[in-house]
Amino acid sequence: MKKSLGAKTLAYPTPVWLVGTYDTEGKPNIMTAAWAGICCSKPPSVAVSLRKATYSYGNIVARQALTINIPSEKQVKEADYVGIASGRDVDKFAKTGFTPVDSDLVDAPYVKECPLILECRLLHTLEIGLHTLFVGEILDVKADLDVLGDSGLPDIEKVKPIIFGPEIRAYHGIGPYLGQAFAIGKDL
Amino acid sequence: MKKSLGAKTLAYPTPVWLVGTYDTEGKPNIMTAAWAGICCSKPPSVAVSLRKATYSYGNIVARQALTINIPSEKQVKEADYVGIASGRDVDKFAKTGFTPVDSDLVDAPYVKECPLILECRLLHTLEIGLHTLFVGEILDVKADLDVLGDSGLPDIEKVKPIIFGPEIRAYHGIGPYLGQAFAIGKDL
Repeated sequence: MKKSLGAKTLAYPTPVWLVGTYDTEGKPNIMTAAWAGICCSKPPSVAVSLRKATYSYGNIVARQALTINIPSEKQVKEADYVGIASGRDVDKFAKTGFTPVDSDLVDAPYVKECPLILECRLLHTLEIGLHTLFVGEILDVKADLDVLGDSGLPDIEKVKPIIFGPEIRAYHGIGPYLGQAFAIGKDL
Repeated sequence: MKKSLGAKTLAYPTPVWLVGTYDTEGKPNIMTAAWAGICCSKPPSVAVSLRKATYSYGNIVARQALTINIPSEKQVKEADYVGIASGRDVDKFAKTGFTPVDSDLVDAPYVKECPLILECRLLHTLEIGLHTLFVGEILDVKADLDVLGDSGLPDIEKVKPIIFGPEIRAYHGIGPYLGQAFAIGKDL
């Protein structure tokens, strides 16, 4: 038995990613985005949707670039803060203590303290409604050495990404390992 | 110190959602999608990217509709299986034991056994490269009564959505509660 809840942006999980941009003066900014996800394998691309009213929106349009910074659960307060305050009013890097690092690939800063970051150049812009969807081509992924696993890839249990639940407005951490993808289904 | 890992679709978390469609004959199909996320608040919309080679791709183009079915961690084998097999070759509903339910809002079936489902009509199609991004307007969200929390909204700890880690190809469950969004950042 299912209950109808209406037309809502209610789906689990959504990510908690920090979008890094420069404004027209070169001031670095970050904002939290949960309306986001990977959207293409070739070219490797990520989609992030922002409201036009945000400071980051204008920055992406002006600079044609952005970074995706994946915070760890110990940075959950900082991640929440940069989703509340606006870069128009405050220097969010100064307030959080995060350090902006100039990407040498794209015209955007990344967050030194985030364990996993993606450097992206703007590829497409799609107007949907309240939000505009930006597709960024991932030119490089960088990870902190201490989150790498034996495979040389980032271990999700070391990265400890944050999961956002829309409507319930709750943050959760990553839970137990359930199995290997493209493998456990073969037992069915 | 960060290590460069190259241009990869490597970001955590990504969702494990099952896309429900009808083919031109009316046969229901489901496939797993991880290149997906919410993409607009008004109209409430979700983005899902599929390769043109998939059976579901043609179904969405033909029917202009899809459902998003959010499996629970106990359904991880079924969720993995429907990402491996093709609806061209097998009846994935029969194989998984999932039951297709005809949506009365859109021309697509949803999965009775999934605790949370979204019924969507196709709003936009964006060609990116290997993947095509479909934007679906969410016309309704339906949830099983036994996953609703005190607020009347689905409790993420009861839904127990699956989290996919690209490249490492690992499934994880939802972890501990970290705090309230749009709130804990104010302490900073």
